[in-house]
Amino acid sequence: MKDSIREEGEQLALDFDKRGGLITAVVQDFSTKDVLMVGFMNQEAWDLTVSRGTATFWSTSRGKLWVKGETSGDYLKVVEIRVDCDQDAVVLLVTPLGDGTCHTVDQNGRHRYSCFYRRWRGSNLEFFEIDE
Amino acid sequence: MKDSIREEGEQLALDFDKRGGLITAVVQDFSTKDVLMVGFMNQEAWDLTVSRGTATFWSTSRGKLWVKGETSGDYLKVVEIRVDCDQDAVVLLVTPLGDGTCHTVDQNGRHRYSCFYRRWRGSNLEFFEIDE
Repeated sequence: MKDSIREEGEQLALDFDKRGGLITAVVQDFSTKDVLMVGFMNQEAWDLTVSRGTATFWSTSRGKLWVKGETSGDYLKVVEIRVDCDQDAVVLLVTPLGDGTCHTVDQNGRHRYSCFYRRWRGSNLEFFEIDE
Repeated sequence: MKDSIREEGEQLALDFDKRGGLITAVVQDFSTKDVLMVGFMNQEAWDLTVSRGTATFWSTSRGKLWVKGETSGDYLKVVEIRVDCDQDAVVLLVTPLGDGTCHTVDQNGRHRYSCFYRRWRGSNLEFFEIDE
């Protein structure tokens, strides 16, 4: 497919070939607009995400399909999906249904709201609280 | 490095090895919180981004370093950087200095504000205007 058609068309033509079968999926909270996590999707993960309305990824570390929340209960309900110019990345605008999106836990033993709970400060990282 | 140290520490230990030398970089507008684009960084791109305060990526399609804005003038001034749990992805909170962040142009010949200018609607994509 020509770049111009992929970029300016109304046809969905996700470019899975560009990165070995995967597109990048940024997960953003629909109400707060905070970025919660970044994952990857193959064709099957995309198909399941849109048919079920629940964010599903391809786990590159485990090498298998990953329905986010399947073990933790922290499902992500998809409200809207945005597709980028060259169709190799999407933004999932979601409503988190569980405790928190990250698999890590805070001092109170709760799953953290976002995977991005630290910010870069020179050579160190600083933990911070996102205003939810 | 142990997962627990990478996830719970204050030490910057970006995991470039996990995806062939690259981490994922999500670019978010610091003031509107809109996601503007997704790119990738190798160690050199990271080093230049933090030393200059200007978003710099590794272009996977061109196979070379890419100072965003170098040809278009659409530089991205980095205000804050957030790092995710396993340190293979970052969010750059930026102030766009140019016309728009995307390399594509709208009907008025201006660079689009964000690369995510279409949303998924069933089998089709719908162009929309982000409220800036």
